[in-house]
Amino acid sequence: MQFASKLIEEAVTEISRLPGIGKKTALRLVLFLLKEEKAITQALSHALQNMRENIRYCDVCHNISDTPICTICTGHRRDQSIICVVEDIPDILAIENTAQYNGLYHVLGGIISPMEGMGPGELNIESLVNRIATANPAVQEIIFALSPTMEGDTTAFYLTKKLKAFALKTSTIARGIPIGGELEYTDEITLGRSILSRIAYDGK
Amino acid sequence: MQFASKLIEEAVTEISRLPGIGKKTALRLVLFLLKEEKAITQALSHALQNMRENIRYCDVCHNISDTPICTICTGHRRDQSIICVVEDIPDILAIENTAQYNGLYHVLGGIISPMEGMGPGELNIESLVNRIATANPAVQEIIFALSPTMEGDTTAFYLTKKLKAFALKTSTIARGIPIGGELEYTDEITLGRSILSRIAYDGK
Repeated sequence: MQFASKLIEEAVTEISRLPGIGKKTALRLVLFLLKEEKAITQALSHALQNMRENIRYCDVCHNISDTPICTICTGHRRDQSIICVVEDIPDILAIENTAQYNGLYHVLGGIISPMEGMGPGELNIESLVNRIATANPAVQEIIFALSPTMEGDTTAFYLTKKLKAFALKTSTIARGIPIGGELEYTDEITLGRSILSRIAYDGK
Repeated sequence: MQFASKLIEEAVTEISRLPGIGKKTALRLVLFLLKEEKAITQALSHALQNMRENIRYCDVCHNISDTPICTICTGHRRDQSIICVVEDIPDILAIENTAQYNGLYHVLGGIISPMEGMGPGELNIESLVNRIATANPAVQEIIFALSPTMEGDTTAFYLTKKLKAFALKTSTIARGIPIGGELEYTDEITLGRSILSRIAYDGK
């Protein structure tokens, strides 16, 4: 694509670095900003820079936070005895949106994946162990909410071994057919798993 | 959606003002920027601001330009006797990408639309008339490349009347079935028009 202006070209190049945004979409966004007031562009670029420069992470759970310890970790109504281990920050948002969980979180910042050179050393595992060791009141349950992939299972397995000494209840979120999904079109691995992990009607 | 940080919330709000980008996509972009180096965010916000602050438009055709007169208007290989009238800047890019046109352009900056309060006074029509009146070498042909809508047709009609005195050749880009389109699935108005505007095989 040929642009009539270096300024446009630079803006398009920078915007199209973002995931899922190609040159055409980037150009559409640029032309939108040109049509709007200057203040819109100023507010946008200021918000981005401010966010990137000043963002902080919770010292305890590594979630995004404006304070040294995040509002979930300090929440009085939060059940301090359960920690849900997630791969990354969007997972917390997804779980919070379900309104079905009231415990704490721990963000690993990734998942064990030798293919991508991601070992346990790169993840927030030490801080999880320390946290459980020093928690008061004591942590009683760990829920692994990791991706249902080999990497996710490996990470859960590694952590289970690592946390053995604490004699905690550990579990993983259920895998099965999604609600609203059609049995007929569910892949055989998921369907097979959902039979093996069937849930008895007495709730156990 | 609840965010753990005001900074994230502000950035998401600003990004989701952009067309076609909702809160979820905005959050994905924000989390991407957080994972990447700070330099990426800096370059992005700098490019946006620089573009918005310093953008200029060609004095002649109103296209985007880094110089007072754009590279198309000053192009030595451009046919100065034809002007293609378009609604907005992306239209120029679209036509340039076809590599089928070698004349000049004129950006109206909109289209006559009483419904949206867009009258001829809001458009770059005076400058088109002046341009044709003073052009040297003289302009001989005007092509209207406007949307095939009632507003587009109205605008072309208005301009044709306005330019009558100059005794120019005027034309509109062809409307018909798109190349690669299926006759069967073409809407009846387009198909009807394409029969009325049929093109004889001798090329006339």
